[in-house]
Amino acid sequence: MKMFRLLEYIKRISPVDKRLEKKAFKRIDNLTKPIGSLGRLEEFSAKLFSIYDGNMPEKLKKAVYVFAADHGVTRQGVSAYPKDVTYQMVYNFLKGGAAICVFSRLVNADVYVVDVGVDYDFPEGTKIINKKIRKGTDDFTEGPAMTFDDAIDSVFVGIECAEEAIKNGYNLLIPGDMGIGNTTASSAIIKVFTDENTRNVVGRGTGIDDKTYENKIKVIEKAIEVNDPDNKNSLDILEKVGGLEIGAICGFILGGAVNKVPVIIDGFICTAGFILAYLLSPSIKDYVFFSHQSVEPGHKKVLDYLKEKPIFDLKMRLGEGTGAVLASNIIEASLKMFNEMATFEEASVSREIK
Amino acid sequence: MKMFRLLEYIKRISPVDKRLEKKAFKRIDNLTKPIGSLGRLEEFSAKLFSIYDGNMPEKLKKAVYVFAADHGVTRQGVSAYPKDVTYQMVYNFLKGGAAICVFSRLVNADVYVVDVGVDYDFPEGTKIINKKIRKGTDDFTEGPAMTFDDAIDSVFVGIECAEEAIKNGYNLLIPGDMGIGNTTASSAIIKVFTDENTRNVVGRGTGIDDKTYENKIKVIEKAIEVNDPDNKNSLDILEKVGGLEIGAICGFILGGAVNKVPVIIDGFICTAGFILAYLLSPSIKDYVFFSHQSVEPGHKKVLDYLKEKPIFDLKMRLGEGTGAVLASNIIEASLKMFNEMATFEEASVSREIK
Repeated sequence: MKMFRLLEYIKRISPVDKRLEKKAFKRIDNLTKPIGSLGRLEEFSAKLFSIYDGNMPEKLKKAVYVFAADHGVTRQGVSAYPKDVTYQMVYNFLKGGAAICVFSRLVNADVYVVDVGVDYDFPEGTKIINKKIRKGTDDFTEGPAMTFDDAIDSVFVGIECAEEAIKNGYNLLIPGDMGIGNTTASSAIIKVFTDENTRNVVGRGTGIDDKTYENKIKVIEKAIEVNDPDNKNSLDILEKVGGLEIGAICGFILGGAVNKVPVIIDGFICTAGFILAYLLSPSIKDYVFFSHQSVEPGHKKVLDYLKEKPIFDLKMRLGEGTGAVLASNIIEASLKMFNEMATFEEASVSREIK
Repeated sequence: MKMFRLLEYIKRISPVDKRLEKKAFKRIDNLTKPIGSLGRLEEFSAKLFSIYDGNMPEKLKKAVYVFAADHGVTRQGVSAYPKDVTYQMVYNFLKGGAAICVFSRLVNADVYVVDVGVDYDFPEGTKIINKKIRKGTDDFTEGPAMTFDDAIDSVFVGIECAEEAIKNGYNLLIPGDMGIGNTTASSAIIKVFTDENTRNVVGRGTGIDDKTYENKIKVIEKAIEVNDPDNKNSLDILEKVGGLEIGAICGFILGGAVNKVPVIIDGFICTAGFILAYLLSPSIKDYVFFSHQSVEPGHKKVLDYLKEKPIFDLKMRLGEGTGAVLASNIIEASLKMFNEMATFEEASVSREIK
């Protein structure tokens, strides 16, 4: 029943009308600059125009949703940080002291924090969006991370958040993640999707040492062996080796695409969420911008597979949505270029010599 | 006399105290994020701290100075646009319709337009900073672009603008350029500096065709043959194959460094201005951030020579300061990270497991 509802929802995603990009370039090529001289900003602008179905908004209203959840696999000693950091960082988000809050203030984005599955009881009155499905996943080296039902529920959490944000007037969505252990889950997802050698898709996460790194590789290989996820089946991968916040990120991206609202994808974790959405609906690619190249080696592998080049590479590996929020300024510049630059006619500037 | 004044001024530039970067990292490593996880932003932050001599400002106040001038070499047919576009674009800057204005509004930077040598009489009351030295350079295929005196004057225009901006409270300087023909002058400067094969440092500028490109190469080679500039002598290069706005950009960068104010360098033209400043005082490198990788091939050559990697590569080649203004948001993020992120203690977040 839930599955049916999800499939019905996803059916509403259609590829963008590529002719709109050409239409956008009719204006872009008329702006007071040499043709093509704003490079990728021109592409971004045309892509925005196609996502918004030819109705470019006057300005961007940006919503950052940070999805937080815990991971049972942390029991296997895969992270440099204790599991409690997940809930502690949630408080840091709420108080505005985390990187995602600082950067969001800079670019005028509003931050919302969603508890999809933190293993902690937040007292009533905590300014969190409470969508807790369960207190973290199970250790996926011993069986599936969650039930199939939980997996679908986590996707719906993201969908509900996207729908709510859009209802509130946001026209640019940025998912973020918090969950100690989630580079392990994301590496497993990317490994299943790309079928790469494990070593090529596993990185140092928050900064683990050599011994922990070797253990992380073994943990991921064991998880895949024990669970045998179907590499074509998004929800099977999510259920078996995913994470609750990763499912929510997947749903959040789907919600953007259904409503023709662009989504900026952060680094490794959000790209794992994107892959789950992509397996459900490949057209999703039309609605997203990949913001930054993460230091995690699996990130490059998967972007190469998707033939996508991120906006920049600042050697970041923090997550939370930080890279996406920084890149939102570039996306905004491309919108402002389209809306606010004068044309040659308007500015009485001479054109190229033919 | 003027030369003596310039040399006295430049003497005030000293290398930054590198120990301050280490001091900055004591705070950066204490912020609520895995150590090193904000990658290059952490470097930028530490560099800012060293430039400001250990007194990080609370916020950035950004000034963009667009220096405009004409180039006699346009007579040789080196550009895709007619020379009149220089003054026409000045009007576009003043009306706020150019890319630099649009992007500056987005990142809260104030734009000033400086006439260093536009071949046009702006009527009184035009909101331009009038520092006109002469109506454009001479055609440098026939002799020097300007006199030695004009060259020094152009550098002082930039210095005066930097001093004025800093007096008015700006603590981040962004030079920009406007001048049809200025990629030809910049290519000549970079060619002299790097001694590269001409073809490796000459690009398509505003977008010239193959025939014009071949001509541009010949023009640059002729200019260097006719003038024989001394590759160690900044002012000799400026006088012989430079441009008035490029001299001003050089001075503007010097003015930032003298006052310990960071300067963000845009693309090809501003990098040519930087090279002139660098030849006068190599310590200048401590005070600048290279913003973006220009499409102009000579830009990569010179950045490789300087062992500098720009902040991003968006395939831009517009000039005006556009890439630097976009990158200023990243620099600002690195400042905000330093100032506004909570430490582990403040946020009661657990540290790494040892």
